[in-house]
Amino acid sequence: MPTAPSWSTPDTEQLRELAAKFCATQLVPHRDRFADQHQVDRDLWNRAGDLGLLCLSIPEQYGGGGGNFAHEAVLLEEQAKAGDTAWGAGLHSGIVAHYLLAYAAEDLKQRWLPKMATGELVGAIAMTEPGTGSDLQSVRTTAVADGDEYVINGSKTFITNGQQADLIIVVAKTDRTQGASGISLIVVEADREGFRRGRALHKIGQQGQDTSELFFDDVRVPKAHLLGDAEGQGFVQLMLQLPQERLIVAVGAVAVMEAALEQTLRYTKERQAFGRPVFGFQNTKFTLAEAATETRIARVFLDHCITEHLAGQLDIPTVAMAKWWTTDKAMEVLDNCLQLHGGYGYMAEYPISRMWVDQRVQRIYAGTNEIMKDIISRTL
Amino acid sequence: MPTAPSWSTPDTEQLRELAAKFCATQLVPHRDRFADQHQVDRDLWNRAGDLGLLCLSIPEQYGGGGGNFAHEAVLLEEQAKAGDTAWGAGLHSGIVAHYLLAYAAEDLKQRWLPKMATGELVGAIAMTEPGTGSDLQSVRTTAVADGDEYVINGSKTFITNGQQADLIIVVAKTDRTQGASGISLIVVEADREGFRRGRALHKIGQQGQDTSELFFDDVRVPKAHLLGDAEGQGFVQLMLQLPQERLIVAVGAVAVMEAALEQTLRYTKERQAFGRPVFGFQNTKFTLAEAATETRIARVFLDHCITEHLAGQLDIPTVAMAKWWTTDKAMEVLDNCLQLHGGYGYMAEYPISRMWVDQRVQRIYAGTNEIMKDIISRTL
Amino acid sequence: MPTAPSWSTPDTEQLRELAAKFCATQLVPHRDRFADQHQVDRDLWNRAGDLGLLCLSIPEQYGGGGGNFAHEAVLLEEQAKAGDTAWGAGLHSGIVAHYLLAYAAEDLKQRWLPKMATGELVGAIAMTEPGTGSDLQSVRTTAVADGDEYVINGSKTFITNGQQADLIIVVAKTDRTQGASGISLIVVEADREGFRRGRALHKIGQQGQDTSELFFDDVRVPKAHLLGDAEGQGFVQLMLQLPQERLIVAVGAVAVMEAALEQTLRYTKERQAFGRPVFGFQNTKFTLAEAATETRIARVFLDHCITEHLAGQLDIPTVAMAKWWTTDKAMEVLDNCLQLHGGYGYMAEYPISRMWVDQRVQRIYAGTNEIMKDIISRTL
Amino acid sequence: MPTAPSWSTPDTEQLRELAAKFCATQLVPHRDRFADQHQVDRDLWNRAGDLGLLCLSIPEQYGGGGGNFAHEAVLLEEQAKAGDTAWGAGLHSGIVAHYLLAYAAEDLKQRWLPKMATGELVGAIAMTEPGTGSDLQSVRTTAVADGDEYVINGSKTFITNGQQADLIIVVAKTDRTQGASGISLIVVEADREGFRRGRALHKIGQQGQDTSELFFDDVRVPKAHLLGDAEGQGFVQLMLQLPQERLIVAVGAVAVMEAALEQTLRYTKERQAFGRPVFGFQNTKFTLAEAATETRIARVFLDHCITEHLAGQLDIPTVAMAKWWTTDKAMEVLDNCLQLHGGYGYMAEYPISRMWVDQRVQRIYAGTNEIMKDIISRTL
Repeated sequence: MPTAPSWSTPDTEQLRELAAKFCATQLVPHRDRFADQHQVDRDLWNRAGDLGLLCLSIPEQYGGGGGNFAHEAVLLEEQAKAGDTAWGAGLHSGIVAHYLLAYAAEDLKQRWLPKMATGELVGAIAMTEPGTGSDLQSVRTTAVADGDEYVINGSKTFITNGQQADLIIVVAKTDRTQGASGISLIVVEADREGFRRGRALHKIGQQGQDTSELFFDDVRVPKAHLLGDAEGQGFVQLMLQLPQERLIVAVGAVAVMEAALEQTLRYTKERQAFGRPVFGFQNTKFTLAEAATETRIARVFLDHCITEHLAGQLDIPTVAMAKWWTTDKAMEVLDNCLQLHGGYGYMAEYPISRMWVDQRVQRIYAGTNEIMKDIISRTL
Repeated sequence: MPTAPSWSTPDTEQLRELAAKFCATQLVPHRDRFADQHQVDRDLWNRAGDLGLLCLSIPEQYGGGGGNFAHEAVLLEEQAKAGDTAWGAGLHSGIVAHYLLAYAAEDLKQRWLPKMATGELVGAIAMTEPGTGSDLQSVRTTAVADGDEYVINGSKTFITNGQQADLIIVVAKTDRTQGASGISLIVVEADREGFRRGRALHKIGQQGQDTSELFFDDVRVPKAHLLGDAEGQGFVQLMLQLPQERLIVAVGAVAVMEAALEQTLRYTKERQAFGRPVFGFQNTKFTLAEAATETRIARVFLDHCITEHLAGQLDIPTVAMAKWWTTDKAMEVLDNCLQLHGGYGYMAEYPISRMWVDQRVQRIYAGTNEIMKDIISRTL
Repeated sequence: MPTAPSWSTPDTEQLRELAAKFCATQLVPHRDRFADQHQVDRDLWNRAGDLGLLCLSIPEQYGGGGGNFAHEAVLLEEQAKAGDTAWGAGLHSGIVAHYLLAYAAEDLKQRWLPKMATGELVGAIAMTEPGTGSDLQSVRTTAVADGDEYVINGSKTFITNGQQADLIIVVAKTDRTQGASGISLIVVEADREGFRRGRALHKIGQQGQDTSELFFDDVRVPKAHLLGDAEGQGFVQLMLQLPQERLIVAVGAVAVMEAALEQTLRYTKERQAFGRPVFGFQNTKFTLAEAATETRIARVFLDHCITEHLAGQLDIPTVAMAKWWTTDKAMEVLDNCLQLHGGYGYMAEYPISRMWVDQRVQRIYAGTNEIMKDIISRTL
Repeated sequence: MPTAPSWSTPDTEQLRELAAKFCATQLVPHRDRFADQHQVDRDLWNRAGDLGLLCLSIPEQYGGGGGNFAHEAVLLEEQAKAGDTAWGAGLHSGIVAHYLLAYAAEDLKQRWLPKMATGELVGAIAMTEPGTGSDLQSVRTTAVADGDEYVINGSKTFITNGQQADLIIVVAKTDRTQGASGISLIVVEADREGFRRGRALHKIGQQGQDTSELFFDDVRVPKAHLLGDAEGQGFVQLMLQLPQERLIVAVGAVAVMEAALEQTLRYTKERQAFGRPVFGFQNTKFTLAEAATETRIARVFLDHCITEHLAGQLDIPTVAMAKWWTTDKAMEVLDNCLQLHGGYGYMAEYPISRMWVDQRVQRIYAGTNEIMKDIISRTL
């Protein structure tokens, strides 16, 4: 079985070592505490920044690592293997920073991106609202032009990095009379007056993630904070960036499958039942052979998608396929792996238990898997 | 759709009202606290006892309700509908008390059962050990005769009611040279010297349940605490009682399916997406039609099993079928219902989220679903 | 495991013996010939009539057996167990005769039903058209009143008993300006001028069934052939009779599951592989334990539905549940049973192979399983 | 969506055109006749040979096409797309010829291979016996050395090309006291005395394939017909060649999925139901989005395997993964596609119906999918 993905280079594998060590020392030992406080330690970001683990695929001129998506993928994989879902680095580096890189004015890029790379600023993107899910066209948050400012009003929910974010990209209607074409993306700093965070939401998993509600009451930001050079481009910008977000989800899903499979092989070979290792039973063997097959196939498909993405050729329906399929399969594999652990599979001290409950939401966020099927069906 | 099960009587439906009210007032409002403290309030047992909700199917002469399994089922159903998994009443009344009723000496029945009915004593049964799962024959806890006492040594894990139990039925080897025929059941009071509780185990769900490790170091109990009139009957006693335990699991599973379906119908009819109720999409309709079908079929089969059980005719393979199938199907239904809630399905404030994570362990305990298939296959 | 269904009586079990013998001597030995000629021998109907096996649930005053649906079910079960799908007796007796009984004028009932009971007349019902599937409202066949006759024009397809039918109930529009309320059912004798049969359709399974296209070119029948006392009642009549048709499908599905399970248990216990019986492998055991469970649960649910139907209380969504679920599960069970036969599972001489391919269409006819889910969802 | 596989070259795509035309003119129009006669026309082989479509990956020095596995794959794909399962060319060229190429003595290679390339000789390989399935070690056919000849006795079943084969590689025990190490492969010409064919087996699908029983009664062949330079190498030879056989199966499975998806998209877009195209229903869209995803993922994985195979790096567990997974998924996709055709999906005139029934046996032959999981589990 291959150990390094097809798109890896000496450079990415060197990064992998660094990332793995960071996860092992900075994430794993603090898991319970992160879960209890519903967020990571704030200075985790700075320590990651010091090591160059943030904004890996942002050009060096903006303080980033100068790498590409392969570098982001390596960190995501190591984080997933370590069973971490608390630290929202993938969103920060792989999504928020890239919106700024692609659409922010040059001076704002120079102001914000280097600080995102050091961990001085933490990023978030606020799409979902209490009344909308994957249906972005019906967003109710408004940004009304007033002089050279926008006045933003509305509330958002399910926002990753919600408690710690310093920079928030807000999806808002600059023209309420329009659907998709009335949507704009506007950057709000967290210290603006009228901005308020709700408490971290109580979820059944990903307990260490500071998923939150955010409130905007007459929050004023300069018009220059608009992403893009005109209003109404938000929906198109989202459509262009969502594929990478979805690929990020798939990267995590495949890495979790691989980690779960490895753990379960080890467990079932050590653990005895009815006088032999649990692995000695045909049901165990077949279940794990199936899990190994689907994990392997998911890996080959993911690597194919990453390679296409690195070449700038990953299309929207293909990434939608990757998103729904890997997240569905990951749950199937995790569910079977949990079951093979017996009662221990339900105990929080066994990583498989948390992987299972943490993973579930991946079938929902970044566009539900039902939305993915809808996207695919339109191209058939 | 039918509202009362086929085996219900005016008596059980009157009890249902009482049980529903108890769950609504004594369980639901305290759910978060129970979860935080990893156990229910101790006096919940006494309050239930005062209302006659404990030991419903124990004869009145021992302080019980004088009812039958239908009465136990009613309370279990209401508890499940209320989304409660914290209170181990089903184990206490439906399992532990029945071991005593069936096998304890008359004076001990008179001593213990009335107090179990009032809630003065809480019961538990200690089968599983750190080194064994569903493989009871390889139990390592020993009970060595010494004069007119047994000296018990060993450790147990995954014990429901572990923190609060006053009476513990211990599965131990009275003859270590034997497998199944060396096993005996012996009752230990929690105030015996040498008995010690570990902390409540940290699980991914059923957080309010005080599932624990228990330790026995030279714990001495009178020989009269042996269940049955001779050593070595433990395995047979377990085999005879396990069907009711498994039926109890199935009762809960079906009630949860029904509750989840009802909640999800309500949610998808209220919640709007893309300009219409979520229920308006064919995918939602088909998913819920499938869920409704499997819930209905599970109900008909469960009612069939309960009716057979009330007539003393429920055989071991049939209850094994009920146990694995209803717990598998419950997870499928819950998983689909959670998905239809979108992001809210992952939030602890929505009952569906906790039902999903709480329910998962039912495919593992009371004999894993794999053990159930093994049992069934032996009779084919 | 129970052998006789819960609704059986001494009467039905006596019938079962007769039915089983008839199937064993009149159907099984001729299977290949029926398949080659794409229909049963015409005199099979007469022989069945002589033995009283037709129109079992039609009152004696019309020449029928005077029984109820339980009697029909017994014959359907024995036919299914014998692996026969060639003889369309269920349709003839359980469906066509009942339309006549319920809606035909008294003199026509007296003319037709006794001959259907003897096998002198074979019945069919022509719903589906080349351009419509389960969408009955868009039927294009017309019946235009002309004096005291209807003139019928149109074509039908997928008609069971199409080659042998003497009496055909035709679903036609008497008012083309209306949807459902323009539909009427009209009886056409096969010797009417303008009626023509296409050849038996070449199907992948159920090869012995004379499924056919039927053509109506200016076919004239007396107005009295209208079923019901006014035009436009056809859709309601169909809705009222379809539940029994769907229950008939479910009866067959469950009986096939039972037969397949029994055959596969026998085969896997006899057949050796890698030095032991195929049944000796855990994968075989678990697969068959699952099949046995779902077969048993299907049986309990079916018996529940039959009992409700005998009491006149079976509602439309419940029978829709029975139809889709038993036919889906039957295919799953058959597919697993076929696989356990290895290469022999694909050989026509092993009944499991034909059961598998014959059964597939049950998920489609009598309303596709998708239609069933739609029906169910409307009542949720 | 990509149209040509990643391993294709101008050369293979030129071949594809030729192959597609051959299938369209020489296979498709004769499908029913091939099915009726349970074999293709004998001269089909010669016509294919004339066009250079046989032995595509056999070196030119032996009369072959001088290509590689990519060329074999192209013909297999076109055959599968055309819905043909009658013509056993994949076995002849991709399997039998390669055993000869790898293990036959030089003079025999020169005698036989050129004639296999012209279609003068048709090849088969006789592994399975009535008493054995995938368990090759328990083969009972014997080859006893007598002077400079082997005397072969035994019977074989499920032999593809059984009616037309001129050269048969027989799996036999040269040492009955041994298991795997007693097995040898020996070539038997069909005109040897004592060789006899049973009739073509009656299968539920792949009706045009001349799958047969073969009988060997004191058949004498020169010792030089032994493949390899010593007895007892047969099992190892089989293990070395089986991966290509399994890859051949996977190639067909993926091509069938692609063809079925394309046909079903066309059908559901044309066919109206309830006033709109069948494709207009969300259930159709989601079902086909899922089918498209799994087809695409299967294609990417298959192409990965072919590329590895062309580089001589395809390992046994990976090809086992490809075999079981693609054949399982193909049946799922075909089953859903059939269902979306409604009643027409069961009619032999619609290719989807035959694809479905023809495809089923792929989960069984070339090593059952259970054997594949066993192979995989040994490497975990």
